[in-house]
Amino acid sequence: MNHETALSELSGLLGDRLSTSMAERELHGQNETYYAAMPPDAVAYPETTAEVSEILKICNAHGCPVTAYGAASSLEGQHLARAGGISLDMARMNRVLAVNAEDMNAVVQPGLTRKFLNEELRATGLFFSVDPGADASLGGMAATRASGTTAVRYGTMRENVLALEAVMADGTVIRTGTKARKSSTGYDLAHLLIGSEGTLGIITELTVRLHGIPEMTAAATCRFDSVEDAVNCVITTIQAGLPMARIELLDEMMVRGFNAYSHAGLPEKPHLFLEFHGSTAGVADQMDTFGTIADEFGAEAFRTATTTEDRNALWAMRHDAHYASAALGRGKHIWPTDVCVPISRLAEAVVQAQTDAREMGLTCTIVGHVGDGNFHAGLSVDPEDAEEMARAKEFTDKLARTGLRLGGTVSGEHGIGIGKRQHMAAEHGDALGFMRRIKAGFDPNNILNPGKLLPANA
Amino acid sequence: MNHETALSELSGLLGDRLSTSMAERELHGQNETYYAAMPPDAVAYPETTAEVSEILKICNAHGCPVTAYGAASSLEGQHLARAGGISLDMARMNRVLAVNAEDMNAVVQPGLTRKFLNEELRATGLFFSVDPGADASLGGMAATRASGTTAVRYGTMRENVLALEAVMADGTVIRTGTKARKSSTGYDLAHLLIGSEGTLGIITELTVRLHGIPEMTAAATCRFDSVEDAVNCVITTIQAGLPMARIELLDEMMVRGFNAYSHAGLPEKPHLFLEFHGSTAGVADQMDTFGTIADEFGAEAFRTATTTEDRNALWAMRHDAHYASAALGRGKHIWPTDVCVPISRLAEAVVQAQTDAREMGLTCTIVGHVGDGNFHAGLSVDPEDAEEMARAKEFTDKLARTGLRLGGTVSGEHGIGIGKRQHMAAEHGDALGFMRRIKAGFDPNNILNPGKLLPANA
Repeated sequence: MNHETALSELSGLLGDRLSTSMAERELHGQNETYYAAMPPDAVAYPETTAEVSEILKICNAHGCPVTAYGAASSLEGQHLARAGGISLDMARMNRVLAVNAEDMNAVVQPGLTRKFLNEELRATGLFFSVDPGADASLGGMAATRASGTTAVRYGTMRENVLALEAVMADGTVIRTGTKARKSSTGYDLAHLLIGSEGTLGIITELTVRLHGIPEMTAAATCRFDSVEDAVNCVITTIQAGLPMARIELLDEMMVRGFNAYSHAGLPEKPHLFLEFHGSTAGVADQMDTFGTIADEFGAEAFRTATTTEDRNALWAMRHDAHYASAALGRGKHIWPTDVCVPISRLAEAVVQAQTDAREMGLTCTIVGHVGDGNFHAGLSVDPEDAEEMARAKEFTDKLARTGLRLGGTVSGEHGIGIGKRQHMAAEHGDALGFMRRIKAGFDPNNILNPGKLLPANA
Repeated sequence: MNHETALSELSGLLGDRLSTSMAERELHGQNETYYAAMPPDAVAYPETTAEVSEILKICNAHGCPVTAYGAASSLEGQHLARAGGISLDMARMNRVLAVNAEDMNAVVQPGLTRKFLNEELRATGLFFSVDPGADASLGGMAATRASGTTAVRYGTMRENVLALEAVMADGTVIRTGTKARKSSTGYDLAHLLIGSEGTLGIITELTVRLHGIPEMTAAATCRFDSVEDAVNCVITTIQAGLPMARIELLDEMMVRGFNAYSHAGLPEKPHLFLEFHGSTAGVADQMDTFGTIADEFGAEAFRTATTTEDRNALWAMRHDAHYASAALGRGKHIWPTDVCVPISRLAEAVVQAQTDAREMGLTCTIVGHVGDGNFHAGLSVDPEDAEEMARAKEFTDKLARTGLRLGGTVSGEHGIGIGKRQHMAAEHGDALGFMRRIKAGFDPNNILNPGKLLPANA
């Protein structure tokens, strides 16, 4: 067994909350996407920040890797213990510590999932907005800078985390940010930790922003003759200042997937799925303005869903995109990837991805948070088919390069993890050296999620 | 003369764009607030990023301090060359490099001021939202994480900078962020530089977000019997999800200042100054909802200003707060300070500040971005009166401690600079050590704005 001394000390600290059973190790080595299983040497279940600190002190002293584990919904292998060591499962730190309704924030532990938080908030008239689809843990969402369908209006985790408590590699517990809405005091360590994928510190507490549940919520769908028309409609809508709560693009293939999976019966054309939030009068005004804009771009079949039931059905269908893609691929695995470009280049990026997939003989669905210029491609693959996997890898790499060529980024929300480290140099150039300086300064023994985010030193 | 070798090499590089004239040095050593003059040894006027890089290489080799200089409107001495060396005046790097209307962003040089940018944007239907009052430079605004009256709706510089180019202490030019609206790739160096007050790198280019000019803008004022009533009205308004564009609190003393300076003729009670943005119907709806809420809290004299002329008059008065405070102080200097607390504690913080000022025998006006929980206190002081200056210092320190006690931060927008370094340990605790690691990693020779932001090592 590797890291024997560390594991022995951890066992003394945690008792049966350190597990080396094969079942638990294998469970923690799995992922939803295409990475091979990577079981850790042991799984630790801390219950307090003080315990996380003690764990890190032990691991730091012995050079034992520590990989934080939330809901395991990350899509680039961020939660996999690639270099062995321990998987730090935050599931037992899952409480809501405070809801400050007047200040519209909540203090939570990292293992809490977003759906549980929203359950807890039900009586307050407030909600937590960030919705990446999966019922992810809030610590994991912060660590991967998650976003999702509502980011166009309410922002990503970057905009919705006010403060963090984190344990650093040497066991030091820090707090960054306050319960005030803004601050101009010192280096923004909160934003440095957000998106650091567990490589700079372990998040042990979050203060997140909440938003008022709007008086009125209405959803709608419409379809277009081309991706260009749909995207140009979105650009005009955003420029007009319409505070869209959700604005999602589904390409023809994605629609075909929904038809296959949920018998949606939609014509196989690019669709927009929309949501409007506001006062009753405000939503009516927004929908009216959107309708006028959509007409300019030849939208057809503008249908609204104002009842909770109809809306939920619509977004349930949207959130099943992964399974719908799988249905289209006749049970194959789905290799998900994402990219984000300036919205002016979005139609070009989507059409390029569609063309590339066709030319590479890959079945590919596209669904996008188009208000942000961000879209996902879901490739149907058979992990046993090395040649198909190689084509999928080629597609993914090309999409990342397309993102950079069009002035964007290789990932809008899935992050770097294992799979996109090779693109870090192309995206960040000499800035990468300064990221390495931070990593070296914060985690000199490289115990925090080694082999993620930063590419190996050249 | 100090730093002779560095200045000689800089002179060779820049010719007459390196000035050691007493007049220019003295000009660059001044500030709008209460800090003693601190002239640099020389003033450099770079014209390109490549020149900034060469300048930093020279200064880094010789340990010569470099302090970036924008519009000199910083309020905690951030632009003062406290340790001598050169003042890096960015005034010649003041161009708009691109306006990307479809993507709603602009690429600008750091010496450009926000008003010039908005002039350039006039024909596009877009505007740059961050408005700290002063016509600050955009580089300086990013470096100090500026905000202002519109942050409640459109965010601070933290939310409005998409990407930066910066020159690091060793002359390396980096780019961080992209033109895409979001990204989840790597450490967020953009947010690390935003608010770093020129201590980690020199910003040489910014990509900033733009917003659509709303179809309708309306302003309004109303008054309340107490600060508590005014603040509770604001809390309810924000919770109701009203997308206020501006919501400013003026305390009784500030109103007295406006009466003295602009003959405003307002009753000396707490006032709110408001602005609503949206469609014509949307603004009417917002104003109606606000009016109902304000009534609950006993608001009187709700007056609207829908013409551009009336609105401009209102905000011109608000932006003259500094001079109005001076008028009240009968020509004394104004010592400005700020603090930011959770909005639920705002009334308590304001009343505490009013009480403290009264008990300390200080004339103090309060004006606040109450939607953010942020307010400014303006103390009338005579810099020649050491005893009064000591009382003002005591007030400022106590206000900072009040901010922390109430769960907030020692500054919402003025920053740390020279004056609030002593509060950094109380606010950040062990996180301060990690800020020092970043500084040591990025600027090992401590040439970038030494003596600012981080307190001296214990």
